[in-house]
Formats: sequence, structure tokens, C-alpha cells
Amino acid sequence: MSEEKLPSRAENYSEWYNQVVLKAEMADYAPVRGCMVVRPYGWALWENIQASLDQRFKATGHVNAAFPMLIPKSFLEKEKEHVEGFSPELAVVTIGGGQELEEPLIVRPTSETIIGHMYSKWIKSYRDLPILINQWGNVVRWEMRTRLFLRTLEFYWQEGHTAHASEQEAQEETLRMLEVYTRFAIDEAAIPVIPGHKSDSERFAGAQRTYSIEAMMGDTRALQSATSHNLGQNFARAFDIRYLDPNNELQYCWTTSWGLSTRFVGAIIMAHGDDQGLILPPRLAPIQVVLIPIFRNDEEKSSVLPVVERLSAELTDFRLRVDDRTELTPGFKFNDWEMRGVPLRLEIGPKDVQNQTVMAARRDKPGKAGKTLLNQDQIARQVKELLEEIQKAMLDRATAFRDEHIHNPKNYDEFKDIITRGWAFSWWCGSAACEAKIKEETKATTRCAPIDQSEGKGTCIYCGKPANEKVYFARAY
Amino acid sequence: MSEEKLPSRAENYSEWYNQVVLKAEMADYAPVRGCMVVRPYGWALWENIQASLDQRFKATGHVNAAFPMLIPKSFLEKEKEHVEGFSPELAVVTIGGGQELEEPLIVRPTSETIIGHMYSKWIKSYRDLPILINQWGNVVRWEMRTRLFLRTLEFYWQEGHTAHASEQEAQEETLRMLEVYTRFAIDEAAIPVIPGHKSDSERFAGAQRTYSIEAMMGDTRALQSATSHNLGQNFARAFDIRYLDPNNELQYCWTTSWGLSTRFVGAIIMAHGDDQGLILPPRLAPIQVVLIPIFRNDEEKSSVLPVVERLSAELTDFRLRVDDRTELTPGFKFNDWEMRGVPLRLEIGPKDVQNQTVMAARRDKPGKAGKTLLNQDQIARQVKELLEEIQKAMLDRATAFRDEHIHNPKNYDEFKDIITRGWAFSWWCGSAACEAKIKEETKATTRCAPIDQSEGKGTCIYCGKPANEKVYFARAY
Repeated sequence: MSEEKLPSRAENYSEWYNQVVLKAEMADYAPVRGCMVVRPYGWALWENIQASLDQRFKATGHVNAAFPMLIPKSFLEKEKEHVEGFSPELAVVTIGGGQELEEPLIVRPTSETIIGHMYSKWIKSYRDLPILINQWGNVVRWEMRTRLFLRTLEFYWQEGHTAHASEQEAQEETLRMLEVYTRFAIDEAAIPVIPGHKSDSERFAGAQRTYSIEAMMGDTRALQSATSHNLGQNFARAFDIRYLDPNNELQYCWTTSWGLSTRFVGAIIMAHGDDQGLILPPRLAPIQVVLIPIFRNDEEKSSVLPVVERLSAELTDFRLRVDDRTELTPGFKFNDWEMRGVPLRLEIGPKDVQNQTVMAARRDKPGKAGKTLLNQDQIARQVKELLEEIQKAMLDRATAFRDEHIHNPKNYDEFKDIITRGWAFSWWCGSAACEAKIKEETKATTRCAPIDQSEGKGTCIYCGKPANEKVYFARAY
Repeated sequence: MSEEKLPSRAENYSEWYNQVVLKAEMADYAPVRGCMVVRPYGWALWENIQASLDQRFKATGHVNAAFPMLIPKSFLEKEKEHVEGFSPELAVVTIGGGQELEEPLIVRPTSETIIGHMYSKWIKSYRDLPILINQWGNVVRWEMRTRLFLRTLEFYWQEGHTAHASEQEAQEETLRMLEVYTRFAIDEAAIPVIPGHKSDSERFAGAQRTYSIEAMMGDTRALQSATSHNLGQNFARAFDIRYLDPNNELQYCWTTSWGLSTRFVGAIIMAHGDDQGLILPPRLAPIQVVLIPIFRNDEEKSSVLPVVERLSAELTDFRLRVDDRTELTPGFKFNDWEMRGVPLRLEIGPKDVQNQTVMAARRDKPGKAGKTLLNQDQIARQVKELLEEIQKAMLDRATAFRDEHIHNPKNYDEFKDIITRGWAFSWWCGSAACEAKIKEETKATTRCAPIDQSEGKGTCIYCGKPANEKVYFARAY
């Protein structure tokens, strides 16, 4: 860790983000433009995200598989909207084994096409359905403006791809996975995301309908954190994915796809971080507890270290790090682990040895408010409770922040003001023209529309015409 | 599963292999030449391999990270042997975002170069060493003759990359990881691999010394199952990976790399499979136990199914599948799960309900010899014991098979005979000329030389000159 201070978020949010990613050693710039190296600390967070999602996918009947990264160019061209959407961002392999290739190969930007091809081969009868497959992997999209985690040429993600016998099943699957993402974000990452469906202009290229979860970052901008697509029969028709139904008639399948990427790491950083650095939710943090021995001389050391050893043996249920680096002061270590967002710090000094205590400091509550004196003989139980409290407090704080920054503007003038410092939840007539005008004039885009529209009807915030839907508008990452 | 029978291994080993991979739904051919789709059953096996190795890597102090898949072409050219070795097999991205790239990008065939570049940026002082990083990912090598799992254009693997302050530490790490692979192969996969170092001609391009574990397949051919490379200072010099030592002097690091790939799935298939299909070692099998209810009518069904339900609730410690598909006969199911290599099959019929029994059939012992009648009230304990017995019996059988097929030929004529039906463990003078002649005349290559050469000195099996090393020779995959 470098000893320079972070810029404050108020001062320069964007620079705060870049520096906290680098200083906390989450990621680094790669020598290829727009690519990142995910460093061990960042990757450990991603591994915890993966483990938690993977368990949820498996609990809902999905299995993992791996499809090739290289896709024939002609595959992409089979679905009209899909190729239009992805053509500008493709990386193309034209040479293989020293030879110019007859047909160039695309490095996958997403895998609907190659998976569709395989499904058409595997699916014969209604008995083969549904197919519920997920893939963990890397994809490449040739982005022009990149940011670590938020938008990189290569990124890591999971992409689920399912095929069903009926439209209804496909729609149920699409919403089931939206719900899985929502619960994951709220329960594991402590991010109170808002689920809903996207407008046509924000729809996935080739989807019939796209749903997303939207999260509010610390600067009030929105970050689309995962998407779930009902692909209708678009890819089934393009790739001839058909099955014999119980009446022995050939039918096209209904397919879905859904994904969450390393972008979500950026969401965690920006939803929770403060001017001292990261604040990681205990359920996903690579290190949940850091234990720091404190002593000034050999005598103190020899009384402190055995206690540290004994207590760390009692804390094996937690992701614990004992920071016994000798060349660094306790103060440096405190700052270092604060920067890295470790939820709970434990300090053990000579006084604690004497009094059978441990000083605990919560990362989410800086200063005295976050300090508690624990008992050594109840350490495991108390740490468990504290981590649960931190997890809950982080969600409460993020929820309060979100709700304080979502407004119902009465008119477009209010809308324009609100959008500079929060989200607007407004009636929209559904026309792409109004949406485009709003974007042009305020940089705000439609984020998503809640699935349950309980407020009846209203008038469009832009044109004043009748509107059936209330939609979240925000500037977004 | 198709109902056609597999060809026997004696009849056509190669075709047996291809068909068992396809019929057991381990993998399928992708629409891009030489690429594979790893299907859910195959991927679940790979996930178990990953979990087991990952735990061993972490226990030896390693952490995971992710480095970009796209590497500037110029990077590869920095290490002379490395570029010569890999140039013929590169996939090259020349177009990105619709534009011709100024510098073409290589799809990584391995990551020494880009990781070396990052290490040179991260390592400043001896305090930063060692760096012990592993990466799980995909790589591409433009192979001409491909086989599912054994040799595919894209494959999945892990690659460890470490940097050390001294030559000795790097060598210790190289051998430590060779030992991790050896223990993994023997203890988890029940494959009695032989560790040793490779000859110069079989060395990794850019390594100072390459070590491997070599496994014997069912047709007696060898399969290199993992490698561990001491890279000396070759990459440190090419990428300027240097550190300040305690005397404040700049020193080059010593680096290592080591990897195991989806090739290992092929090793498991060929080390253990029989004419009925796969035989998977219990510790890695995606499904350890399949439970098949047997009934002929509704009355039997209503007495059998509650017992199946009760027993499966007692077997939650195992990876259990209850095969309650109604449209298939028990006989079909038996064949299906035999093909897929599930180690243990449990059958529960009306008689078992009456007698409180369960019929168990071991996959590794076909016919009556592998059948045992279990007690319902001790089912979990008995299943655990049986799985352990199967794991041990598989290793014993593979070890006996290996030892029966390794010979010490007295002369080159015997050598030539032996090599058609096994391995030769022979003195070799170390000259590349003898090695090349042997390969030309017998198709056998040097596989590896044991690290402990306890037999003193001898004379080269080919030229008769003095030899310091005994080496395993075999035809190899």
C-alpha cells in the first residue's frame, strides 16, 4: 500500500474510485489498452461472489458447463438485432497457427449463438427440456472508454442459458433468475438493488425483454448490476432449436439468458466505500477479521503473542488474518486494513492480556462509535454477532442513502434538478423519443420499471401524454 | 445416452475413447475445428478436480488472480526459446472494434510473459517475495491433430506463477508443486503417476528444467498429466523482474510455473475405463452413488418409493442421484450409469423393503463379485466404507497394471519389443541424437527421469555409451 491519502469522494469521486481500486490492490492496469489484472485481493472477493451465486444457481436446478471462446463470425450474423448490437465491439481472430483463417473467429462477447447451436444439436424431444446451463468464463467487448471493473475489454462473468418448452416457463425462469440476483445483492452484498424491466432502447440485442437489477452508487449514479433476458423464440428460430412435443409435432423452444460480471465488484466498492477506502460486506469479504497484536518490547511481545495464537485458533470459522508483520507500526496496519475494507479489526495489547479482553473496531463505524471491548472467553460468539450487525448496518445505511436520493419530481424542471443529485421515479409514456430527449438534456437514462406497477396511470414527465408506467431515471455507469 | 454398444478397448482403443466421451456426455465437438464443449457431466468432474487442487494450492500458500487473455505480440518475442516454441501455435487477434490493430494481440497460449510484465511492476524489494499466484483459466494453442480433452485448440487449466529471491527457493517450489500434483493424482484420481524431470528436448519453451508426472493409460501409452517448470532467471531477465536485496542491491528474481489442464480428464477416462464405459474414482466422481428404485406395479411402487426417500435423506453426505425416471427400465438405467462410471449403484426393490436391505453394485467389479447386500439401518456407514474400498481398489488395480507394463529391457531389441506393449525403464546417455533415433525407430519418447537415481551408472540402451540416468520411455498421447 502506498502511504498517500485517497482523494475524498466529495472532491473527486472518479479519482477516489480509481485510487481505492489500485491502493487496496483489487486490480491493476494491464499492458493491453482497456484490460485489467484482477489482483489476489480482488479475485478473492470475486471468488466469494462466485461461490454464493453458484450455490444459488445449483439450488434452482442449474448445472455448469463450458462452451468455446472462439465463435465463427457467421454465427453472430444469424440473429439480426444481435449482430447489430455486438458488431462494433468485436475482437476478431484472423490468423491461426500461422495461417490466415478462411472464416474469421470472434472472441465471444456473449455466448447465445454458440450455445444455441449446441442446443439445436442436443435437444430432440420435450423430455430433454428444460435445459438449465450456466457458464463461468471470460468475454471480450471492444469498449472505447474503460474503467477498472466497471467497463473493461475483457471481463469475467457467468452467463446462464436455458431452453424451455413454453413461453410461460421461459418467462418464469427469467424472473426466477432476476429474483436470485436480487436476493444475492441484498443478502450477500448488502446492496439494496431495484429490480425491473428495461426499456426497448436498453434491451439486450436479440432479447424480447430484458430485466435488470439497478444499484445506487455513493455519488448517486446508477449501476446496472445484473441482467436477465427473456429471448422469446428469437435465438431458437435463428439456430433451429426445436423439440418434438408429446403430440410428435416439432416446436421451437423458448430461451433465456442471464448474467452477472466482475462489474459487480465495482458496485460493491462504490455502494459502500468511504473516504478511508473500501468497506466490504462481511458475507463476501476475503478477510472478515484482522487480528493485530500490539506490543512495544520483547516482554510485551512474549505475553501478547500466545494470546493472539490462542484466540486465532478459536476463530477458525471466520476468514481471519493475523497481521504479525514486524516492520510496520500498528497505526500503519490500521490504515492499511481500513483501506482494504476488512469489516472487523481486533487489537490485542498487554492490557488486554491482563484483563482478558480484546478491542474490536468496526470498519463501517469509524472512531469511538465503532469500538467495543470483547471478552476473550466469548470471542467467537461475539465476533459472529458483530459481523452480523455490520452486515445488517451496511444494508440499512445503503438503503437509507438510496431512499433519500430517489424522488418523485412534480414536473420536468424538478426532474432536471433532481437528476443532478439522485434518481427520479417518474411516469413515462414509453416513447423512445421522450427517452432520447431526456437523455440528451440531462444525461439520465431509463434504468428500469418495477414489475408491479401499483400506482395506476399518470402523465409522462417529459411530454405530458398519458403514461402507464413509472420508471427510474438516473445518470448511470 | 444412445443404446449402441461401445467398441471394445482391444478392438479399437481410440474409437472406444471417443465414443465413451460422447456417450457419457462428458464433452462434444464444437463447431470450430479442434474445439470442444465440456458438457455438464464432464464439467462437474473438472470442478471436483479444481476444488481439490485449489485447496492444495491454498494450503501451500498460493492465492488466485486473473491476468488478461490478450497479450501483445511483442511480449512473446522477449524470451527467445519461448517465442520459438509457441509461434507455430498462436491464434492472433488483428481486428478490434472494427479497426485493424496497430499491434496484433495473441490469445494466450500460456501466461509467463504477461505475468512476468506485471511482476516486474509489483516487485520492488525482497520483502515482496515470494509471490505465489495461481490462475484458473482458458488458453488457446493452434493444434493440428486434436482429440476431446487430450488435445484441443482451447483448453482449461490452472497455471501457477511464482517469483523467488533465490535459486534454491525456486527449485524447492518447483518440486513442491510436482509433489502436490503427484499426491493429487494418486490420492484423488487413483492414478499412480510417476514424477520426474523431462529431457531437454521435452522441456517447456523457456524453462531451465521441466518436471512432469506421467500416467499409464489402459492401452499402455503414457500421458503427461501435469508439469512444473523451474524457469531459472530466463523470464526475470526478459521482463526485468528485479528486487532490492537486504543490502540494497538489485537482483533478478528466480521464477517457476506449473500447470494441470482438462487433459487430466482424459487421463482419468483412459486410466480407469473398461469396455462398459467410464469408471470414476469416488473422490472426484460428480455422482458417487446412484439409487435406483425397482418396482413392477403401483403397489410395489408405493412400498418402494418411501424407503428410497428415507434412505436418500440419510445419504446427504454423498453426491447422490436418485434415478426415478419413469419411462426407462431398470436395465437401461444400469447400463446408463455404468457408462457414466458412477462408482456405486444401490437398488431398492420390494424384497429389500421387506428385508430391510439394499443391493449395492460396485462399478469397478462387474458382475456378482461386486455385489453386496447392505442393511438399511447402516446404510450411510456401509456406503462410506464401500466408496473408500472402491477408491483403494482402483488405485491398486491401476498400480498393478502399470507395474506389469514397465520393463527393464536388456538390449535395444528387447526395448523395441517392449515399447509396443508397455514402457521401458532404461539407461540413457543423455544425448539428443539417441533420443531422436529411438523416437524415429519406435515412436517412443523419453517421458521422465526419476529425481532419485539410486541405481548408479549404466550403459545407454541405444548407443551403449556410459549413462548416468535411467529414464522412462513410452509411446505417448
